[in-house]
Amino acid sequence: MRRLLVANRGEIAVRIIRAARDLGIGTVAVHSQADADALHTRLADTAVGIGPSPASKSYLVAEAILDAAERTGADAVHPGYGFLSERASFAAAVADAGLIFVGPTASTIERMGDKVAAREVARAAGVPTVPGTPGGVPDADAAAEAARSIGYPVMLKAAAGGGGRGIRVVHDEDALRGAFGQASTEARKAFGDGTMYLERFVERARHVEVQVLGDGSAAVHLFERECSLQRRRQKVVEEAVSPGITEAVREGMTRAAVALCREVGYTSAGTVEFLVDDETQEFFFIEMNTRIQVEHPTTELITGIDLVAEQLRIAAGEPLRFAQPDVARRGHAIEYRVCAEDPGQDFMPQPGGVGRVTLPSGPWVRCDTWLEPDATVPPYYDSLLAKVVVWGADRDEALARSRRALDEFAVDGIPTTAGLLRELVDEPWVAAADFHTGTLESWLAERKENA
Amino acid sequence: MRRLLVANRGEIAVRIIRAARDLGIGTVAVHSQADADALHTRLADTAVGIGPSPASKSYLVAEAILDAAERTGADAVHPGYGFLSERASFAAAVADAGLIFVGPTASTIERMGDKVAAREVARAAGVPTVPGTPGGVPDADAAAEAARSIGYPVMLKAAAGGGGRGIRVVHDEDALRGAFGQASTEARKAFGDGTMYLERFVERARHVEVQVLGDGSAAVHLFERECSLQRRRQKVVEEAVSPGITEAVREGMTRAAVALCREVGYTSAGTVEFLVDDETQEFFFIEMNTRIQVEHPTTELITGIDLVAEQLRIAAGEPLRFAQPDVARRGHAIEYRVCAEDPGQDFMPQPGGVGRVTLPSGPWVRCDTWLEPDATVPPYYDSLLAKVVVWGADRDEALARSRRALDEFAVDGIPTTAGLLRELVDEPWVAAADFHTGTLESWLAERKENA
Repeated sequence: MRRLLVANRGEIAVRIIRAARDLGIGTVAVHSQADADALHTRLADTAVGIGPSPASKSYLVAEAILDAAERTGADAVHPGYGFLSERASFAAAVADAGLIFVGPTASTIERMGDKVAAREVARAAGVPTVPGTPGGVPDADAAAEAARSIGYPVMLKAAAGGGGRGIRVVHDEDALRGAFGQASTEARKAFGDGTMYLERFVERARHVEVQVLGDGSAAVHLFERECSLQRRRQKVVEEAVSPGITEAVREGMTRAAVALCREVGYTSAGTVEFLVDDETQEFFFIEMNTRIQVEHPTTELITGIDLVAEQLRIAAGEPLRFAQPDVARRGHAIEYRVCAEDPGQDFMPQPGGVGRVTLPSGPWVRCDTWLEPDATVPPYYDSLLAKVVVWGADRDEALARSRRALDEFAVDGIPTTAGLLRELVDEPWVAAADFHTGTLESWLAERKENA
Repeated sequence: MRRLLVANRGEIAVRIIRAARDLGIGTVAVHSQADADALHTRLADTAVGIGPSPASKSYLVAEAILDAAERTGADAVHPGYGFLSERASFAAAVADAGLIFVGPTASTIERMGDKVAAREVARAAGVPTVPGTPGGVPDADAAAEAARSIGYPVMLKAAAGGGGRGIRVVHDEDALRGAFGQASTEARKAFGDGTMYLERFVERARHVEVQVLGDGSAAVHLFERECSLQRRRQKVVEEAVSPGITEAVREGMTRAAVALCREVGYTSAGTVEFLVDDETQEFFFIEMNTRIQVEHPTTELITGIDLVAEQLRIAAGEPLRFAQPDVARRGHAIEYRVCAEDPGQDFMPQPGGVGRVTLPSGPWVRCDTWLEPDATVPPYYDSLLAKVVVWGADRDEALARSRRALDEFAVDGIPTTAGLLRELVDEPWVAAADFHTGTLESWLAERKENA
């Protein structure tokens, strides 16, 4: 690999350029009109404009990106996260153009991107999935029988439903029998199909994900990340490792993630997402992300392994450089996503020009960002300004550094979520790691009421 | 400890404030007129002006600092490095005022600051010192006899001399006998005293220093730093650990440093400096620095231990938090001192106003600095702008990240040494770690000739 085209923007483009530079690989940035003077554009060896500002006319246009690769003599393409990163067709097009796609094969992306196929892979690898009926159940009796083996509470779901519609949570058989007919009738009316199926409902669920690296034959895990602090299913704070699982769960979950990778002969970095029942400590496979993850720096800080550099090495055909016993962890890392959003206005994105910028710095604080003094936050893309990532010898030390780092973060001109994140660090339930995927939203709702 | 006064400026004041903040300790900055708007002044909870810009009228005035401590209710004083940090009288005055001095006791500072007393401590602790005669030798015959046991080459030194004057290096007995009379006559003329003494001359000497922490009873080492890349006895690049010593030397040297600490009941962070003969791998105690060192971040990056925080904890009366087996190292770290100096004008300091500032950032790059956009580099203090510190899983990875980090460093308005440091990284003798304390100066001289 001699020259890498980075098919992304913002902090992840900057991050990828730095990894390439560390390996002595030349870099090509692509940019929309809005990003003509952005940091990633200036930092790369070469930059190519690929279209107007909306992503649909630039960062999402595969042809424009492949054209830029051809014109600049790039021999590899890194998709980053978001945009085209999980489109199997893009991976295939890159390969068809004779270039290296930095990620798994198109067929792996396709397979793991299909929820049903992914769950089949998980089952084949012996990885637990959320207990449920394989398909529809004909009536309340059958539902009750199934629920007894699944275990309460269960969700009654319309097979034809989506977006949470037609879902009922029931806590015992009486409730199930009472709800079944009504739910099925509603489903028939809403979707033209009254078929219902059942799935275990996890009341206090943690979102925990395992970082993996595979080279097609060997695979290793790099421990897990806790990502339960979410707002509208968007991660807000992530940490490595999870403070909410037992060592036995850690062992089982990491082993399961590696088994899954082996099952598909996974190549590149990937993330295997699990749901953990906080009461029972059971864990269930949800999905696999076949790309670098926003929260990857937390894993890097505890393992000392540069995940993007490893992606590049694997893509260049090198075998994995370490076996499982070589992957050790030290300390604790936490990432805070600072966004150009106004928490006082329901997190409305706040694009615009910024003035003075003070980024947190100093010992064990890493700030991955594209932000600079006098930069402009374009209205076209996600609102992520910076990832403030801290490391500590233990979680308490990491939390203490979080306070310092978030206090130092300052941007003139636009509201950001830094202050809210700073507030969060002082919450006793955060210090105690006593949270699940619903906790942050409840806290935000309560905070709003009290405001 | 509730409120810490930081009796320093620049990057180390910023560094100390951050450590205090991580521990939940309030901070008081002191500043000269020139530093009224400096980063350390703004970052602290409280700031007190202590006098005009020259250090002799502010940062070196113990009374002004103690007065500031009293006015702000500070209960502890951190001296940083330089300025008053190794003045026993200052440590004593702080203690007399009923405040905590963050460092060893005044008597330890005094003892280790006296070269003769320090060497006696070393001998008592069984730590090797540079072989030589204990005092003057009466004549050439006695000198020749002494030299036989010291081993050639030896330095003939005038007992009353200083600053390198009256020193002769001889490689065999003939040369010694030939030089003795002449050197003694010269010394008598120059210093009024012809007494000569002998010391082993190490031709290829490395400067290697061991970081220690002691709490008055227990002591541990945090491995060593290689500091041989020097210009005019000023360190330019430092790394942890040394790439130029054997594991046996590392073990012997770190054990010696801990023995020295135990001998004096050392309290706080300290550095035991050694000279290593690159040919024979013998090591000799030179001196001990009883303060935090400029290059301490390299040790922090390989051990994960916050040295300034540990200084604060020890000063507050806590016992050491770890025994020797708890101190592990991972990877390799290198620090580059970027100064406001013009390498093309014999490193003349270049104070003045700066415009745009781009500090290196991203994975495994730490930049300790006081520098901000539109800041002013005052002419009154040292010319250190920033310490660019990189970590890698091994030395090669650290060197690769060094290139990236130094390439990113950019300051408009004044010349800096960043470009020269970047050049240095590409030198094959740097990659091979094939250098001693004279190598950088030779390279600079050669570079100047070829310019």
